[in-house]
Amino acid sequence: MFRFGIMGAGGIAAKFCDAVRRLEGAEVAAVASKSVERAERFARENGVVRFYGDYEEMLERERPDAVYVATTNNFHFENVMLCIRHGVPVLCEKSMFMTLAEAEEAFGFARERKVFLMEAMWSRFLPCVQKAREWVAEGRIGTVQIANYTGGINAPAEHRIFKPELGGGAMYDLTVYPIEILTYLVNQPLVDVRAEIGWGSSGVDEDNSLLLKFETCRGAVQTTTHARIPSPCGLYGPKGYIRLEQTHRASAVELYDGEFRLVERFESEVENGFEYEAAEVMRCVKMGELESAVMPHRDTLECIRVFEKALKGGERRGEGRAAVGCADMRYVNVTQPCEVGRQHIR
Amino acid sequence: MFRFGIMGAGGIAAKFCDAVRRLEGAEVAAVASKSVERAERFARENGVVRFYGDYEEMLERERPDAVYVATTNNFHFENVMLCIRHGVPVLCEKSMFMTLAEAEEAFGFARERKVFLMEAMWSRFLPCVQKAREWVAEGRIGTVQIANYTGGINAPAEHRIFKPELGGGAMYDLTVYPIEILTYLVNQPLVDVRAEIGWGSSGVDEDNSLLLKFETCRGAVQTTTHARIPSPCGLYGPKGYIRLEQTHRASAVELYDGEFRLVERFESEVENGFEYEAAEVMRCVKMGELESAVMPHRDTLECIRVFEKALKGGERRGEGRAAVGCADMRYVNVTQPCEVGRQHIR
Repeated sequence: MFRFGIMGAGGIAAKFCDAVRRLEGAEVAAVASKSVERAERFARENGVVRFYGDYEEMLERERPDAVYVATTNNFHFENVMLCIRHGVPVLCEKSMFMTLAEAEEAFGFARERKVFLMEAMWSRFLPCVQKAREWVAEGRIGTVQIANYTGGINAPAEHRIFKPELGGGAMYDLTVYPIEILTYLVNQPLVDVRAEIGWGSSGVDEDNSLLLKFETCRGAVQTTTHARIPSPCGLYGPKGYIRLEQTHRASAVELYDGEFRLVERFESEVENGFEYEAAEVMRCVKMGELESAVMPHRDTLECIRVFEKALKGGERRGEGRAAVGCADMRYVNVTQPCEVGRQHIR
Repeated sequence: MFRFGIMGAGGIAAKFCDAVRRLEGAEVAAVASKSVERAERFARENGVVRFYGDYEEMLERERPDAVYVATTNNFHFENVMLCIRHGVPVLCEKSMFMTLAEAEEAFGFARERKVFLMEAMWSRFLPCVQKAREWVAEGRIGTVQIANYTGGINAPAEHRIFKPELGGGAMYDLTVYPIEILTYLVNQPLVDVRAEIGWGSSGVDEDNSLLLKFETCRGAVQTTTHARIPSPCGLYGPKGYIRLEQTHRASAVELYDGEFRLVERFESEVENGFEYEAAEVMRCVKMGELESAVMPHRDTLECIRVFEKALKGGERRGEGRAAVGCADMRYVNVTQPCEVGRQHIR
């Protein structure tokens, strides 16, 4: 039995429990929260046998096969580092880290200690997203020329996303999806980024528009915290196009030819959605792999580079919605693709 | 009978003839081309009685109620100026002018001579586009937060669009649509533009990605000459969203609520498409109006400002597709909206 431990006892941790229940040969062995009461209630409600009021205690007593970090963004780095120190493989919620410095330290430490580490960008593992990438790789639409992804939620004022102290902001909570899914689907080196950031009076970025320049393709990513958007994504090439709806939880993907005729439609109902990433963690850990080919370290690092470049207008925080910071950014060194651009990944 | 004259004898002029045939009380009285043979053949094929091998001769002999300028982009300015000198109202194909200097001179001259002048952005007049604008104005989706429009053609190497000497380029032929339709639908002051231009070895821009920052809305516009794209357009607000397909020739428009449920669908089959703009020209000229409220001078000027700002990386022309110019631009003076931004228009 593959034994997961969970750090954090919120709604997303409960969803992960449900996902693990759908997997053969896996269980959630224990949950830990800073509040033992919260951990106990979570364990009771989610059928988890053991609970802890201390993360380290869970790691020491349980020695789980992997830990799922489900705390708020601001705690990810410290939780991940703790797991690595204990030699425990980690699946960490997105956005995994808030700065490039944190990310580089954690990934370096994981490599050094030979511990598996992966960002929980669950959507990459969905059958529909995999199918879209397969179609691109097979050249079904030719070399991708244009790609875009628009997403958003209409969040109430009291939402966590508006709280800087919890690592809020559209970038970390929303834009992370289009960046990581689009780069995965386009699968070309990313060479340049331009951004417009809408800073809110909440102190966080409330909407983002990015232009991602890939080798042969131009991508547009837009997200907002002020409109609920059904996350359409399009990939366009000379031979046709691919369209996803509700992209980050896609249950269908369509392939059209250059005459706008539907060529193929692939469906795969999303029940939970996290089971695919959980299965990948199990597989990688069993095989002794230190990272997943679907969600490798360099892709998380690259996403955080996009965050940092885009958010560098950050000094404008708190000026209110009307005052919008505009960051202008560019990967300065495209001759070192591992450092600053994206490699083709298999 | 309202008598149109046509300058230019290409395919788009033939389409305009067909449009005028669909209107009551209007006819194409004459056609002129630099080549009298072309004019004669066009007249015969399109049921136009009189033809001329000289533009000025047509103006003097026919004294048409309005002229439709259907020449290639590089000739628009000289054709328009000729009509104005003769006091003849003008509908001029898009993109109307290639530089802001030309546009300002022509609009100034038209105002001075009290001659009607309008860019032939026919799509603005389509019932579906009008319906979308109506829904926005009625607040059906709330204040627009995100807007986007993606378009493209997959042009063969010999296409006119790749010929700088004919005023080619994705900007003048393709991007003009999303800029002018999106600004019309969003209907907010435009305060900033960012662009990525893909310069081709043809010497023209072969793809464009623009971020348009409106007062409360962020727009993304993407076009390419290397992929045929069904021109989807989305407008997203806190209360719902509006979606168009084949936007510049939309035959349907849909309104969804914040729960992604279809609320209303409006259909209006596009047969020709140009008849609506032709009818507007007739109406305006008969009423003695000097510009159309749907396609006013300032919107054409603003579009050209976007062109100029976006294309200022133009010195990179001819470097080939891999070498991509990136223009960074900003309307410098947002306190003078008439000059540099967009006014709310009714």
